[in-house]
Amino acid sequence: MWKPDRNAKIPIYRQIVEHLERRIAFGELPPGSQLPSERRMAEQLDINRSTVIQAYEELRASGLLESTVGRGTSVSRTKWGLTPSQTPNWHHYTEGGAFLPNLPLMRRIREVTRQDDQLIDLASGELSDDLFPNRLIQDLLKEQPFEEHLGYELPQGHAGLRGTLSLFLERQHGIRTTGSSILVTSGSQQSLYLITQCLLSPGDAVAIEDPSYSYSLPMFQSAGLRICRLPVHKDGIEPGDIIQLYREHRIRMIFLNPNYQNPTGSVLSMAKRKRLLEIAAEYRIPVVEDDPFSLTTMQPEPPQPLKSLDQDGIVMYIGSLSKIAASGLRIGWLVAPQSVVARLADARQQMDFGLSIVSEWLAERLMSSERFDDHIMNLQLSLQLKRDQMAESLHKHLPGEVLFDLPQGGLNLWCKINHKINDSRLLEDGIRSGVVFVPGSVYGSEEGYIRLSYARPLLKEIDPGIMALAQALRMQNAR
Amino acid sequence: MWKPDRNAKIPIYRQIVEHLERRIAFGELPPGSQLPSERRMAEQLDINRSTVIQAYEELRASGLLESTVGRGTSVSRTKWGLTPSQTPNWHHYTEGGAFLPNLPLMRRIREVTRQDDQLIDLASGELSDDLFPNRLIQDLLKEQPFEEHLGYELPQGHAGLRGTLSLFLERQHGIRTTGSSILVTSGSQQSLYLITQCLLSPGDAVAIEDPSYSYSLPMFQSAGLRICRLPVHKDGIEPGDIIQLYREHRIRMIFLNPNYQNPTGSVLSMAKRKRLLEIAAEYRIPVVEDDPFSLTTMQPEPPQPLKSLDQDGIVMYIGSLSKIAASGLRIGWLVAPQSVVARLADARQQMDFGLSIVSEWLAERLMSSERFDDHIMNLQLSLQLKRDQMAESLHKHLPGEVLFDLPQGGLNLWCKINHKINDSRLLEDGIRSGVVFVPGSVYGSEEGYIRLSYARPLLKEIDPGIMALAQALRMQNAR
Repeated sequence: MWKPDRNAKIPIYRQIVEHLERRIAFGELPPGSQLPSERRMAEQLDINRSTVIQAYEELRASGLLESTVGRGTSVSRTKWGLTPSQTPNWHHYTEGGAFLPNLPLMRRIREVTRQDDQLIDLASGELSDDLFPNRLIQDLLKEQPFEEHLGYELPQGHAGLRGTLSLFLERQHGIRTTGSSILVTSGSQQSLYLITQCLLSPGDAVAIEDPSYSYSLPMFQSAGLRICRLPVHKDGIEPGDIIQLYREHRIRMIFLNPNYQNPTGSVLSMAKRKRLLEIAAEYRIPVVEDDPFSLTTMQPEPPQPLKSLDQDGIVMYIGSLSKIAASGLRIGWLVAPQSVVARLADARQQMDFGLSIVSEWLAERLMSSERFDDHIMNLQLSLQLKRDQMAESLHKHLPGEVLFDLPQGGLNLWCKINHKINDSRLLEDGIRSGVVFVPGSVYGSEEGYIRLSYARPLLKEIDPGIMALAQALRMQNAR
Repeated sequence: MWKPDRNAKIPIYRQIVEHLERRIAFGELPPGSQLPSERRMAEQLDINRSTVIQAYEELRASGLLESTVGRGTSVSRTKWGLTPSQTPNWHHYTEGGAFLPNLPLMRRIREVTRQDDQLIDLASGELSDDLFPNRLIQDLLKEQPFEEHLGYELPQGHAGLRGTLSLFLERQHGIRTTGSSILVTSGSQQSLYLITQCLLSPGDAVAIEDPSYSYSLPMFQSAGLRICRLPVHKDGIEPGDIIQLYREHRIRMIFLNPNYQNPTGSVLSMAKRKRLLEIAAEYRIPVVEDDPFSLTTMQPEPPQPLKSLDQDGIVMYIGSLSKIAASGLRIGWLVAPQSVVARLADARQQMDFGLSIVSEWLAERLMSSERFDDHIMNLQLSLQLKRDQMAESLHKHLPGEVLFDLPQGGLNLWCKINHKINDSRLLEDGIRSGVVFVPGSVYGSEEGYIRLSYARPLLKEIDPGIMALAQALRMQNAR
């Protein structure tokens, strides 16, 4: 985002004037475009409000901006003699279309973390920079000459990467598959998007866990799906609930995160896994298994994914590098019956023509490197340290006020607050105290829960982060 | 794709049996999955039909496959005592959903070029391997240490790349913009997808050129858009036609490729550009300018994009590296008013969470490298040589039978065949003669046209390719 240069000789208000003049002249802010209020613009640029007022005044004087009481400041429609009807009504276009915007609480969290890098981030599900395999990736880029074909990739993705993935899936997760049943995607988000867009139709009912990460995705609503809830207990969902949902709503697909569920951290028990697969087979309902966290385990004998028990092609399995290596590589995978993979690959061609060969090549090198196992082991140790620190700080600063089960993998603590809170007010109080986290309602949960992630903060930031949370809760109580 | 190993000690039919057994056991081919016919499987694996018959017989004997007269061969539903109702009806799922599959002629072309690398490819719009900047990319990967943040990218894409793009767009195309009005996409396909999905609604009418690349994209139909035609003349579309379409159909958007139009190669004249922008402003209809080819020019003073004349933010501009550097990098860009860019960026987050940082970083290095201009110059010279060779070969082998205007840029010759042809039969005769090209009907044109691309074949393959085309045309005439 553009910011004025404080060391320049040109006064700051003048820099703003010139910046806006350029953007208006380039058509980036067409006639009628709404500008931020003076207060908001001042916040964004981190300057005095009076400076913005001065800049806006000058632009109004030159006829480029106009302000109306109640409607704020916008780019003049009369610039260069244009009549109001001479540019497209962009507002009308951007408000249409099939895509719902992101949830307000999520937008707010993203906005503040982007603007203020002093905030301690217990909201993001992303790993901290020190957990990424930076050095390994640099070495791979330097050591291995890039000799791939630079043309369009196969619709299912790089053949070598799919081969490496089939070995990886068998070795790490006990999933037996071949490259022809794997679709390389740009991450779990794209895998879910392809499934909801290509295999389901508006009006279809689907079952998702409650609470669940899926509620944070407007994707399900954008696809016009009817959502049915499967309550999550300590050992995961109750498979029998599926029969009930099928009878009442004819659910057409089940979305689950059996290992270290997001946000609760629960693990579906083995008995429930077997029962679930029986029911899914009997009622012929495909299961989508989202499995971002299996390799973030802290257990000596971690649970295998549901997919490893599936011999009949009932489960579509989704994994990615985002939570175990680097989200910025945008590499994920989907394992499904071949006809499904072919259909999704064909549709993906129409959306984006496939993935970047450089990223796929690098992912292949990374996952077949001998050093990748070391990276995973280090990651698991670091996450365990961070989890333990967070639990300790919660016991210290909020004894008895916050309840949680210690998760055995994943990136999150799911906390019940022991007194009444208001989600969005608590978030704002948190921001004022210097910490950000995700209120439980984002995951479809009742109020009174928050998700604290130990992935993103550095180890040393966790204790101050929890202290800031304690302060925010005190502000809530004082209201 | 899996192929039997001809040098292995295990007989080929046995390799097929084991391969299919594995895939059935892994659930990749669930009960009920249709297998290719014996003839087709033999073609795909490039082996004798009798070998496939032997393999299928063995699998039938073991109960894994079943064949029914009229319905072909499929995976048994009775495997391991499953009743027919115990796996999801995957066929039902893959046939549903909003996405139309690719056009049959396009699928056929892709299939044969993937299977037979002896075919001379005059169909693909992709550059030949020798035109990609392989060496430059290898050097950049080796020379420059990768030190980017490995986390999620900004929704609009890498800030450095957007900065480089704004300089590039001004220097190369006279387009003035800043990074905040640029969305980095994974290529023109994604730019178009975002526009059709997010700014338009099912039932909206849009105008596209006739003939046009857009007709080859089921994307427009998948989005439920009504398509109105703007006939393309030697100097492009007739702007006055837009008024007519607006009055009759209330068209909401215009899609154009003003420079070296695909497939015709035509260039919209300057007078028509000005008139077009006047009309678009008057009727408030946004214009999408698809501009893949401006830098493939052979003209000393090439035409600037329409966007360079647009001061009011009427034009959304789409470009990419695919036709000027490497399609496999999956880097494109979209320039539009900021509110539009923000909306598309938000929607893209829901589809795939953005681009690979490695690819964006490499594209930034590539486009800001001093050697990039040399690459473009070499590309232009090579394309000119290939175009001239193709024109010469057409005059030599098909004198008077094929008519075309020599394009001044782009990658294609648009040819009118001087006698009656049937599109799909000519394509099959071409394949039998050893050449593949795109029949005109793919672009919504009447029969009697074909698109010959000189991008993909090597210079020395062009003359044999045209000879093969001549043979295919003789086969047509003989029918």
